[in-house]
Amino acid sequence: MTTFEQLATRQRACRRFDPSEDVSDPDVVAMLECAVHAPSAQNCQPWEFVVVRSPATRREFQAIVQASWTGAGEDYAREHLSPGMFADIEDSIAGGGLETAPVVVVVCADTNRVAEMWIESSIFPATQNLLLAAGSLGYGSCLTTGVPLGFKDKVVDLLQLPDSIVPMAAVFIGRPAKQLGAPRREPARQHMHREHFGVGWDE
Amino acid sequence: MTTFEQLATRQRACRRFDPSEDVSDPDVVAMLECAVHAPSAQNCQPWEFVVVRSPATRREFQAIVQASWTGAGEDYAREHLSPGMFADIEDSIAGGGLETAPVVVVVCADTNRVAEMWIESSIFPATQNLLLAAGSLGYGSCLTTGVPLGFKDKVVDLLQLPDSIVPMAAVFIGRPAKQLGAPRREPARQHMHREHFGVGWDE
Repeated sequence: MTTFEQLATRQRACRRFDPSEDVSDPDVVAMLECAVHAPSAQNCQPWEFVVVRSPATRREFQAIVQASWTGAGEDYAREHLSPGMFADIEDSIAGGGLETAPVVVVVCADTNRVAEMWIESSIFPATQNLLLAAGSLGYGSCLTTGVPLGFKDKVVDLLQLPDSIVPMAAVFIGRPAKQLGAPRREPARQHMHREHFGVGWDE
Repeated sequence: MTTFEQLATRQRACRRFDPSEDVSDPDVVAMLECAVHAPSAQNCQPWEFVVVRSPATRREFQAIVQASWTGAGEDYAREHLSPGMFADIEDSIAGGGLETAPVVVVVCADTNRVAEMWIESSIFPATQNLLLAAGSLGYGSCLTTGVPLGFKDKVVDLLQLPDSIVPMAAVFIGRPAKQLGAPRREPARQHMHREHFGVGWDE
Protein backbone atom coordinates (compact mmCIF):
# COMPACT_ATOMS: atom_id res chain seq x y z
CA MET A 1 0.00 0.00 0.00
CA THR A 2 1.13 3.53 -0.73
CA THR A 3 1.94 5.83 2.18
CA PHE A 4 0.77 9.42 2.05
CA GLU A 5 4.35 10.56 1.56
CA GLN A 6 4.69 8.32 -1.50
CA LEU A 7 1.34 9.45 -2.91
CA ALA A 8 2.10 13.15 -2.37
CA THR A 9 5.66 13.13 -3.67
CA ARG A 10 4.73 11.21 -6.83
CA GLN A 11 1.88 13.50 -7.84
CA ARG A 12 2.40 14.85 -11.29
CA ALA A 13 0.19 16.64 -13.80
CA CYS A 14 -1.16 14.26 -16.45
CA ARG A 15 -2.00 16.00 -19.71
CA ARG A 16 -2.91 13.16 -22.07
CA PHE A 17 -5.16 10.23 -21.23
CA ASP A 18 -5.87 6.72 -22.49
CA PRO A 19 -9.06 7.10 -24.57
CA SER A 20 -9.98 3.42 -24.11
CA GLU A 21 -10.32 3.80 -20.32
CA ASP A 22 -13.16 5.43 -18.44
CA VAL A 23 -13.58 6.81 -14.91
CA SER A 24 -16.46 5.04 -13.17
CA ASP A 25 -19.22 6.90 -11.34
CA PRO A 26 -18.32 5.23 -8.02
CA ASP A 27 -14.72 6.38 -8.43
CA VAL A 28 -15.87 9.95 -9.11
CA VAL A 29 -18.00 9.85 -5.94
CA ALA A 30 -15.10 8.40 -3.91
CA MET A 31 -12.77 11.18 -5.09
CA LEU A 32 -15.27 13.91 -4.30
CA GLU A 33 -16.00 12.38 -0.89
CA CYS A 34 -12.32 13.02 -0.15
CA ALA A 35 -12.63 16.54 -1.57
CA VAL A 36 -15.51 17.51 0.74
CA HIS A 37 -13.49 16.47 3.80
CA ALA A 38 -10.95 19.24 3.21
CA PRO A 39 -11.01 22.17 5.60
CA SER A 40 -12.96 25.31 4.76
CA ALA A 41 -13.38 28.62 6.59
CA GLN A 42 -15.62 27.99 9.59
CA ASN A 43 -16.50 24.64 7.96
CA CYS A 44 -18.68 26.49 5.42
CA GLN A 45 -18.16 23.78 2.74
CA PRO A 46 -18.81 26.20 -0.14
CA TRP A 47 -18.03 23.75 -2.97
CA GLU A 48 -20.19 22.57 -5.87
CA PHE A 49 -18.87 20.11 -8.45
CA VAL A 50 -20.06 19.85 -12.04
CA VAL A 51 -18.97 16.49 -13.45
CA VAL A 52 -18.61 16.70 -17.22
CA ARG A 53 -18.44 13.68 -19.51
CA SER A 54 -20.06 15.18 -22.61
CA PRO A 55 -17.60 15.13 -25.53
CA ALA A 56 -19.05 18.41 -26.82
CA THR A 57 -18.40 20.24 -23.54
CA ARG A 58 -14.95 18.67 -23.22
CA ARG A 59 -14.15 19.93 -26.72
CA GLU A 60 -15.23 23.42 -25.65
CA PHE A 61 -12.93 23.21 -22.61
CA GLN A 62 -10.07 22.17 -24.86
CA ALA A 63 -10.73 25.22 -27.05
CA ILE A 64 -10.83 27.48 -23.98
CA VAL A 65 -7.55 26.09 -22.65
CA GLN A 66 -6.00 26.65 -26.06
CA ALA A 67 -7.26 30.23 -26.21
CA SER A 68 -6.02 30.98 -22.69
CA TRP A 69 -2.60 29.54 -23.53
CA THR A 70 -1.95 31.26 -26.83
CA GLY A 71 -0.02 34.46 -26.33
CA ALA A 72 1.14 35.51 -22.87
CA GLY A 73 0.91 32.08 -21.20
CA GLU A 74 2.78 30.36 -24.00
CA ASP A 75 5.44 33.05 -24.21
CA TYR A 76 6.03 32.94 -20.46
CA ALA A 77 6.22 29.16 -20.47
CA ARG A 78 8.63 29.02 -23.41
CA GLU A 79 10.99 31.25 -21.47
CA HIS A 80 10.68 29.60 -18.05
CA LEU A 81 10.04 25.89 -18.54
CA SER A 82 12.38 23.07 -19.50
CA PRO A 83 12.05 22.05 -23.17
CA GLY A 84 10.57 18.70 -22.09
CA MET A 85 7.88 20.23 -19.95
CA PHE A 86 7.10 22.87 -22.56
CA ALA A 87 6.64 20.14 -25.19
CA ASP A 88 4.39 18.20 -22.79
CA ILE A 89 2.17 21.23 -22.22
CA GLU A 90 2.10 22.12 -25.92
CA ASP A 91 0.91 18.59 -26.70
CA SER A 92 -1.82 18.81 -24.08
CA ILE A 93 -3.06 22.12 -25.44
CA ALA A 94 -2.32 22.58 -29.13
CA GLY A 95 -2.18 18.79 -29.52
CA GLY A 96 -5.55 18.17 -27.88
CA GLY A 97 -4.28 16.08 -24.94
CA LEU A 98 -6.64 17.44 -22.32
CA GLU A 99 -9.69 16.61 -24.43
CA THR A 100 -8.81 12.92 -24.08
CA ALA A 101 -9.76 13.01 -20.37
CA PRO A 102 -13.07 11.14 -20.03
CA VAL A 103 -14.10 13.26 -17.05
CA VAL A 104 -13.65 16.92 -16.20
CA VAL A 105 -14.69 18.08 -12.74
CA VAL A 106 -15.35 21.80 -12.57
CA VAL A 107 -14.91 22.89 -8.97
CA CYS A 108 -17.10 25.87 -8.12
CA ALA A 109 -17.66 28.10 -5.08
CA ASP A 110 -21.10 29.15 -3.89
CA THR A 111 -20.64 32.78 -2.90
CA ASN A 112 -23.81 32.61 -0.81
CA ARG A 113 -21.99 30.24 1.53
CA VAL A 114 -18.54 31.83 1.83
CA ALA A 115 -17.15 35.34 2.27
CA GLU A 116 -15.12 36.49 -0.72
CA MET A 117 -11.83 36.66 1.23
CA TRP A 118 -12.13 32.96 2.08
CA ILE A 119 -13.08 31.53 -1.32
CA GLU A 120 -9.65 30.32 -2.45
CA SER A 121 -8.51 28.99 0.93
CA SER A 122 -11.78 27.05 1.13
CA ILE A 123 -11.75 25.70 -2.44
CA PHE A 124 -8.15 24.75 -3.31
CA PRO A 125 -7.56 22.36 -0.37
CA ALA A 126 -10.63 20.41 -1.54
CA THR A 127 -9.32 20.53 -5.10
CA GLN A 128 -5.99 19.10 -3.96
CA ASN A 129 -7.82 16.28 -2.14
CA LEU A 130 -9.57 15.51 -5.43
CA LEU A 131 -6.22 15.28 -7.25
CA LEU A 132 -4.64 13.12 -4.55
CA ALA A 133 -7.68 10.83 -4.42
CA ALA A 134 -7.49 10.42 -8.19
CA GLY A 135 -3.84 9.43 -7.83
CA SER A 136 -4.63 6.97 -5.06
CA LEU A 137 -7.08 5.23 -7.42
CA GLY A 138 -4.51 5.04 -10.22
CA TYR A 139 -5.85 7.93 -12.27
CA GLY A 140 -3.92 10.83 -13.68
CA SER A 141 -5.22 14.35 -13.25
CA CYS A 142 -4.47 17.91 -14.22
CA LEU A 143 -5.51 21.05 -12.35
CA THR A 144 -6.23 24.02 -14.54
CA THR A 145 -7.45 27.45 -13.56
CA GLY A 146 -7.23 29.06 -16.99
CA VAL A 147 -10.67 27.73 -17.94
CA PRO A 148 -12.58 29.54 -15.19
CA LEU A 149 -10.23 32.51 -14.75
CA GLY A 150 -9.94 33.66 -18.32
CA PHE A 151 -13.24 32.50 -19.75
CA LYS A 152 -15.65 32.58 -16.87
CA ASP A 153 -18.65 33.75 -18.90
CA LYS A 154 -18.19 30.91 -21.37
CA VAL A 155 -17.97 28.34 -18.56
CA VAL A 156 -21.01 29.82 -16.81
CA ASP A 157 -22.91 29.48 -20.06
CA LEU A 158 -21.74 25.93 -20.84
CA LEU A 159 -22.54 24.62 -17.35
CA GLN A 160 -25.60 26.82 -16.75
CA LEU A 161 -24.21 28.19 -13.50
CA PRO A 162 -26.47 30.50 -11.45
CA ASP A 163 -25.17 33.95 -10.43
CA SER A 164 -23.90 32.86 -7.01
CA ILE A 165 -21.81 29.96 -8.39
CA VAL A 166 -18.26 30.85 -9.47
CA PRO A 167 -16.10 28.34 -11.36
CA MET A 168 -12.64 28.12 -9.76
CA ALA A 169 -10.86 25.16 -11.36
CA ALA A 170 -11.26 22.52 -14.04
CA VAL A 171 -9.72 19.15 -13.16
CA PHE A 172 -9.11 16.70 -16.01
CA ILE A 173 -9.15 13.03 -14.92
CA GLY A 174 -8.49 9.70 -16.63
CA ARG A 175 -6.02 6.87 -16.98
CA PRO A 176 -2.65 8.28 -18.09
CA ALA A 177 -1.74 7.67 -21.75
CA LYS A 178 1.85 6.99 -20.69
CA GLN A 179 3.67 6.42 -17.45
CA LEU A 180 4.53 9.69 -15.79
CA GLY A 181 8.04 10.40 -14.56
CA ALA A 182 8.95 11.79 -11.16
CA PRO A 183 7.87 15.37 -10.49
CA ARG A 184 10.60 18.01 -10.61
CA ARG A 185 10.76 20.05 -7.46
CA GLU A 186 13.30 22.02 -5.51
CA PRO A 187 13.90 20.48 -2.06
CA ALA A 188 11.76 21.90 0.74
CA ARG A 189 14.86 22.88 2.72
CA GLN A 190 15.71 25.50 0.12
CA HIS A 191 12.48 27.28 0.99
CA MET A 192 12.43 26.83 4.76
CA HIS A 193 13.34 29.56 7.25
CA ARG A 194 13.79 29.42 11.02
CA GLU A 195 11.77 31.99 12.96
CA HIS A 196 12.56 34.79 10.50
CA PHE A 197 12.71 34.99 6.74
CA GLY A 198 16.26 34.61 5.49
CA VAL A 199 17.48 32.38 8.31
CA GLY A 200 18.14 29.16 6.40
CA TRP A 201 17.06 25.82 7.80
CA ASP A 202 20.57 24.41 7.94
CA GLU A 203 22.29 27.52 9.32
CA MET B 1 -1.60 1.37 7.27
CA THR B 2 -3.98 4.18 6.52
CA THR B 3 -5.32 4.58 2.99
CA PHE B 4 -5.56 8.02 1.48
CA GLU B 5 -9.34 7.86 1.73
CA GLN B 6 -9.09 7.20 5.47
CA LEU B 7 -6.53 9.96 5.98
CA ALA B 8 -8.53 12.51 3.99
CA THR B 9 -11.94 11.74 5.45
CA ARG B 10 -10.66 11.84 9.04
CA GLN B 11 -8.92 15.20 8.74
CA ARG B 12 -10.21 17.60 11.34
CA ALA B 13 -9.01 20.95 12.65
CA CYS B 14 -7.10 20.60 15.92
CA ARG B 15 -7.24 23.75 18.04
CA ARG B 16 -5.56 22.72 21.30
CA PHE B 17 -2.32 20.77 21.60
CA ASP B 18 -0.48 18.66 24.16
CA PRO B 19 2.15 21.03 25.60
CA SER B 20 4.37 18.13 26.67
CA GLU B 21 4.89 16.94 23.08
CA ASP B 22 7.08 18.54 20.44
CA VAL B 23 7.26 18.32 16.64
CA SER B 24 10.72 17.17 15.58
CA ASP B 25 12.75 18.93 12.90
CA PRO B 26 12.83 15.81 10.69
CA ASP B 27 9.03 15.63 10.89
CA VAL B 28 8.74 19.30 9.87
CA VAL B 29 11.00 18.63 6.88
CA ALA B 30 9.02 15.51 5.93
CA MET B 31 5.74 17.46 6.01
CA LEU B 32 7.14 20.30 3.91
CA GLU B 33 8.66 17.85 1.44
CA CYS B 34 5.07 16.71 0.81
CA ALA B 35 3.96 20.34 0.56
CA VAL B 36 6.46 21.21 -2.18
CA HIS B 37 5.22 18.33 -4.32
CA ALA B 38 1.82 19.92 -4.74
CA PRO B 39 1.00 21.36 -8.15
CA SER B 40 1.58 25.04 -8.91
CA ALA B 41 0.93 27.15 -11.99
CA GLN B 42 3.50 26.17 -14.63
CA ASN B 43 5.40 24.41 -11.81
CA CYS B 44 6.52 27.82 -10.49
CA GLN B 45 6.79 26.52 -6.87
CA PRO B 46 6.27 30.00 -5.36
CA TRP B 47 6.22 28.90 -1.71
CA GLU B 48 8.39 29.94 1.21
CA PHE B 49 7.84 28.52 4.70
CA VAL B 50 8.75 30.26 7.94
CA VAL B 51 8.85 27.68 10.73
CA VAL B 52 8.12 29.34 14.07
CA ARG B 53 8.88 27.74 17.43
CA SER B 54 9.57 30.90 19.45
CA PRO B 55 7.06 31.20 22.31
CA ALA B 56 7.09 34.99 21.96
CA THR B 57 6.09 34.88 18.27
CA ARG B 58 3.50 32.19 18.95
CA ARG B 59 2.00 34.43 21.64
CA GLU B 60 1.81 37.24 19.09
CA PHE B 61 0.03 34.94 16.65
CA GLN B 62 -2.44 33.99 19.38
CA ALA B 63 -3.13 37.69 19.98
CA ILE B 64 -3.60 38.29 16.25
CA VAL B 65 -6.02 35.37 15.93
CA GLN B 66 -7.94 36.72 18.90
CA ALA B 67 -8.10 40.23 17.41
CA SER B 68 -9.22 38.88 14.02
CA TRP B 69 -11.94 36.80 15.68
CA THR B 70 -13.46 39.38 17.99
CA GLY B 71 -16.36 41.13 16.34
CA ALA B 72 -17.51 40.09 12.87
CA GLY B 73 -15.92 36.63 12.81
CA GLU B 74 -17.25 35.71 16.20
CA ASP B 75 -20.73 37.06 15.49
CA TYR B 76 -20.92 35.17 12.20
CA ALA B 77 -19.71 31.98 13.84
CA ARG B 78 -22.13 32.22 16.75
CA GLU B 79 -24.97 32.39 14.26
CA HIS B 80 -23.81 29.68 11.85
CA LEU B 81 -21.91 27.05 13.82
CA SER B 82 -23.12 24.27 16.08
CA PRO B 83 -22.75 25.10 19.80
CA GLY B 84 -20.06 22.39 20.12
CA MET B 85 -17.96 23.72 17.29
CA PHE B 86 -18.42 27.32 18.47
CA ALA B 87 -17.20 26.34 21.96
CA ASP B 88 -14.22 24.54 20.43
CA ILE B 89 -13.22 27.61 18.43
CA GLU B 90 -13.79 29.95 21.39
CA ASP B 91 -11.45 27.79 23.48
CA SER B 92 -8.78 27.86 20.79
CA ILE B 93 -8.97 31.63 20.51
CA ALA B 94 -10.13 33.32 23.72
CA GLY B 95 -8.91 30.30 25.69
CA GLY B 96 -5.43 30.32 24.16
CA GLY B 97 -5.59 26.87 22.55
CA LEU B 98 -3.68 27.73 19.39
CA GLU B 99 -0.72 29.07 21.38
CA THR B 100 -0.16 25.54 22.70
CA ALA B 101 1.00 24.39 19.25
CA PRO B 102 4.79 23.92 19.45
CA VAL B 103 5.21 24.76 15.76
CA VAL B 104 3.53 27.27 13.48
CA VAL B 105 4.35 27.13 9.79
CA VAL B 106 3.63 30.39 7.99
CA VAL B 107 3.10 29.60 4.32
CA CYS B 108 4.12 32.50 2.09
CA ALA B 109 4.08 33.25 -1.64
CA ASP B 110 6.99 34.88 -3.44
CA THR B 111 5.31 37.28 -5.84
CA ASN B 112 8.50 37.41 -7.92
CA ARG B 113 7.88 33.78 -8.86
CA VAL B 114 4.13 33.72 -9.51
CA ALA B 115 1.60 35.93 -11.29
CA GLU B 116 -0.98 37.41 -8.92
CA MET B 117 -3.91 35.52 -10.46
CA TRP B 118 -2.21 32.20 -9.67
CA ILE B 119 -1.09 32.81 -6.08
CA GLU B 120 -3.93 31.04 -4.26
CA SER B 121 -4.21 28.09 -6.63
CA SER B 122 -0.44 27.59 -6.27
CA ILE B 123 -0.29 27.97 -2.47
CA PHE B 124 -3.33 26.25 -0.98
CA PRO B 125 -2.78 22.82 -2.57
CA ALA B 126 0.69 22.81 -0.94
CA THR B 127 -0.86 23.95 2.33
CA GLN B 128 -3.34 21.07 2.19
CA ASN B 129 -0.46 18.62 1.60
CA LEU B 130 1.17 20.02 4.74
CA LEU B 131 -2.01 19.39 6.77
CA LEU B 132 -2.44 15.87 5.39
CA ALA B 133 1.22 15.02 5.99
CA ALA B 134 0.88 16.23 9.58
CA GLY B 135 -2.12 13.92 9.99
CA SER B 136 -0.25 10.99 8.46
CA LEU B 137 2.45 11.44 11.12
CA GLY B 138 -0.10 11.55 13.94
CA TYR B 139 -0.08 15.30 14.45
CA GLY B 140 -3.06 17.59 14.65
CA SER B 141 -3.11 20.80 12.65
CA CYS B 142 -5.18 23.88 12.08
CA LEU B 143 -5.21 26.06 8.96
CA THR B 144 -5.82 29.74 9.61
CA THR B 145 -5.86 32.59 7.15
CA GLY B 146 -6.93 35.31 9.60
CA VAL B 147 -3.35 35.86 10.71
CA PRO B 148 -2.02 36.90 7.29
CA LEU B 149 -5.25 38.29 5.84
CA GLY B 150 -6.23 40.68 8.60
CA PHE B 151 -2.86 41.52 10.10
CA LYS B 152 -0.42 41.23 7.24
CA ASP B 153 1.76 44.16 8.32
CA LYS B 154 2.18 42.70 11.79
CA VAL B 155 3.16 39.29 10.37
CA VAL B 156 5.56 40.89 7.90
CA ASP B 157 7.18 42.69 10.81
CA LEU B 158 7.33 39.64 13.12
CA LEU B 159 8.84 37.38 10.47
CA GLN B 160 10.93 40.08 8.72
CA LEU B 161 9.41 39.32 5.34
CA PRO B 162 10.83 41.17 2.32
CA ASP B 163 8.45 43.12 0.05
CA SER B 164 7.98 40.30 -2.46
CA ILE B 165 6.97 37.72 0.19
CA VAL B 166 3.28 37.61 1.09
CA PRO B 167 2.04 35.54 4.05
CA MET B 168 -0.95 33.43 3.01
CA ALA B 169 -1.68 31.01 5.87
CA ALA B 170 -0.55 30.10 9.37
CA VAL B 171 -0.68 26.38 10.13
CA PHE B 172 -0.58 25.35 13.81
CA ILE B 173 0.89 21.86 14.36
CA GLY B 174 1.35 19.59 17.40
CA ARG B 175 0.06 16.49 19.12
CA PRO B 176 -3.67 16.91 19.80
CA ALA B 177 -4.61 17.62 23.44
CA LYS B 178 -7.60 15.31 23.08
CA GLN B 179 -8.79 12.77 20.56
CA LEU B 180 -10.65 14.48 17.75
CA GLY B 181 -14.06 13.26 16.64
CA ALA B 182 -15.12 12.63 13.07
CA PRO B 183 -15.38 15.70 10.85
CA ARG B 184 -18.88 16.93 10.06
CA ARG B 185 -19.52 17.21 6.36
CA GLU B 186 -22.44 17.09 3.98
CA PRO B 187 -22.11 14.13 1.58
CA ALA B 188 -20.42 14.90 -1.72
CA ARG B 189 -23.47 13.73 -3.67
CA GLN B 190 -25.46 16.69 -2.38
CA HIS B 191 -23.04 18.98 -4.18
CA MET B 192 -22.50 17.00 -7.39
CA HIS B 193 -24.11 17.90 -10.72
CA ARG B 194 -24.15 16.00 -14.02
CA GLU B 195 -23.05 18.04 -17.04
CA HIS B 196 -25.03 21.12 -15.94
CA PHE B 197 -25.56 22.82 -12.63
CA GLY B 198 -28.82 21.74 -11.04
CA VAL B 199 -28.90 18.25 -12.53
CA GLY B 200 -28.49 16.16 -9.38
CA TRP B 201 -26.14 13.20 -9.31
CA ASP B 202 -28.88 10.69 -8.56
CA GLU B 203 -31.50 12.05 -10.97
